[in-house]
Amino acid sequence: MKYTAHINIMPLKELLDPQGKAVNNSLHNLGIAQVQDVRIGKHVTLNMEAANKEEATKLAQEACKKLLANPVMETFDCAVVEG
Amino acid sequence: MKYTAHINIMPLKELLDPQGKAVNNSLHNLGIAQVQDVRIGKHVTLNMEAANKEEATKLAQEACKKLLANPVMETFDCAVVEG
Repeated sequence: MKYTAHINIMPLKELLDPQGKAVNNSLHNLGIAQVQDVRIGKHVTLNMEAANKEEATKLAQEACKKLLANPVMETFDCAVVEG
Repeated sequence: MKYTAHINIMPLKELLDPQGKAVNNSLHNLGIAQVQDVRIGKHVTLNMEAANKEEATKLAQEACKKLLANPVMETFDCAVVEG
């Protein structure tokens, strides 16, 4: 069966996020002053073939740990849906 | 009230995603061959102060249209939650 994993990889809360800071300033310059904090990470979608949702989740987490996320600087969460 | 907008900005389906292609090949090299397609975009979280959820959603969409997403190459979706 086909599954899609939606993975968010974000910089750790303890770390500065200069890209987010720059976007925050730009939003203020554009008049959107209600925004107080911006953080920017990656969104990865994996389309995969797996026997069931558990296997698909396991594969997605393995992909994050082995390749996609750097645990020193980033956290990840992944959600798997059918199709 | 405080709201958090979770925004995903992804390359359009019609466009090649060389970064995703590279990750797909790397996953195969690492033995995760069940993955068939990878696409990589950005995940942005905005913390903001707004009167209600509708206003927060409007602000987040305005931020996407004015600054965050390039409509020629990207699509975005945003979900707003309290807190």
